Amino acid sequence: MKIALGVEYLGTDFHGWQIQKSGLRTVQGVVEPALSKIANHPVRVFCSGRTDAGVHAQEQVIHFETQTSRIDGAWLFGGNANLPSDVNFKWAKEVNDDFHARFNAHARSYEYKIHHHPVRSSLKTGYYLWEPRSLNIDDMRKAAAFLVGEHDFSCFRGSMCQAKSPIKTIEYLQIDEVGDDLIIKVKANAFLHHMVRNLVGTLLKIGREEESTEWMLSVLASKDRKEAGPTAEPQGLYFVKAHYQNI
Amino acid sequence: MKIALGVEYLGTDFHGWQIQKSGLRTVQGVVEPALSKIANHPVRVFCSGRTDAGVHAQEQVIHFETQTSRIDGAWLFGGNANLPSDVNFKWAKEVNDDFHARFNAHARSYEYKIHHHPVRSSLKTGYYLWEPRSLNIDDMRKAAAFLVGEHDFSCFRGSMCQAKSPIKTIEYLQIDEVGDDLIIKVKANAFLHHMVRNLVGTLLKIGREEESTEWMLSVLASKDRKEAGPTAEPQGLYFVKAHYQNI
Repeated sequence: MKIALGVEYLGTDFHGWQIQKSGLRTVQGVVEPALSKIANHPVRVFCSGRTDAGVHAQEQVIHFETQTSRIDGAWLFGGNANLPSDVNFKWAKEVNDDFHARFNAHARSYEYKIHHHPVRSSLKTGYYLWEPRSLNIDDMRKAAAFLVGEHDFSCFRGSMCQAKSPIKTIEYLQIDEVGDDLIIKVKANAFLHHMVRNLVGTLLKIGREEESTEWMLSVLASKDRKEAGPTAEPQGLYFVKAHYQNI
Repeated sequence: MKIALGVEYLGTDFHGWQIQKSGLRTVQGVVEPALSKIANHPVRVFCSGRTDAGVHAQEQVIHFETQTSRIDGAWLFGGNANLPSDVNFKWAKEVNDDFHARFNAHARSYEYKIHHHPVRSSLKTGYYLWEPRSLNIDDMRKAAAFLVGEHDFSCFRGSMCQAKSPIKTIEYLQIDEVGDDLIIKVKANAFLHHMVRNLVGTLLKIGREEESTEWMLSVLASKDRKEAGPTAEPQGLYFVKAHYQNI
């Protein structure tokens, strides 16, 4: 049978999602042994979308196959008992055999959190990017609007990207002001490697008025990573949700 | 001259506010050297209200005396450059010679944050108390209302308390539901040692329906710490603000 789980984690002390041969600490590297103990056999998990070192998840989705019959709560609470404090399961659910956390997800959503204030915040360290400079948020919103819809996002594609196609569809890309914070919310059918962080780095150059809003159009048209802004730091990024038809 | 500063800190890795002879890491113990470097002389700071190990501050207020003339921004940004990532100054301001961070504060406000959900949250670890059990929030609100006003709060007084009088005035004590979280907000002219955490531990017993709302009245009337609930864990507590007439 197949079990799906929602996984929350603080990415700070993880070298990303994926197990590494180097033995560096990864989320997958702690999640699999936690579930294996409950299953009584080695477990291999598949996730809806890998995250990089330092990136957090509000709700990553994974699935795995097992011959061991357990109630959902046993995977959830038993699994959590085997996990360190910076990662936890949020829910567990038996799913149909044709479910796949990655291939069945028709969309993913991310948030990027920015502490937008001249003074740094110790309570937000590790959870937000700190941007001390003044930002023109209206310009950022205008530039963000150019990205919504189906585009070739090669300009935001990281060099390690394994996606077959650079063409993705952004459903929304909005910038919310919450007190001194900016929360950039983006949903797309899929994302290229580093796409959100590169997109945020590009928006920030426009926000700081180093570039015009129209510059975003030329970056997009260039299909060239070198034309876009720098990769924004990982600690502001949250994998929010994977979207499925039937889960 | 006198300089006042707002201080934000993540209490997790501090053994509370006050410098200790043991050499344990405290907020005062890192703030004083940071300011001394800017002042070019040893600085002694006074705070509006000490916090315990693990307790955070959104805005502690401190003052110190110096003969060194600097613009406010030098204390703020220069000071921050000398502080570790888990503490920062939020503002700095020259104040009148009769200002005292502790004696001039006519009120303090605190928040206590609770992740109220059957499943723990790794993104909230260290920032919230986790309460997995069901809570009757209406009962907690009714019991909280009994505490508003001027009372002898000996029942919530920690054994190390140095306050002259156990009689304090709570201006408000409200319980907000924000998604899966409870935020308990309290403002009083002053607080006894452990008063907020003991009060929260007592409200939680009522929320879990281990005690009735009227039990709060008998606890208050007893003036006996042994009658109240346990001291709630420190990681949910935030010193929010010290209130002054002229700052």
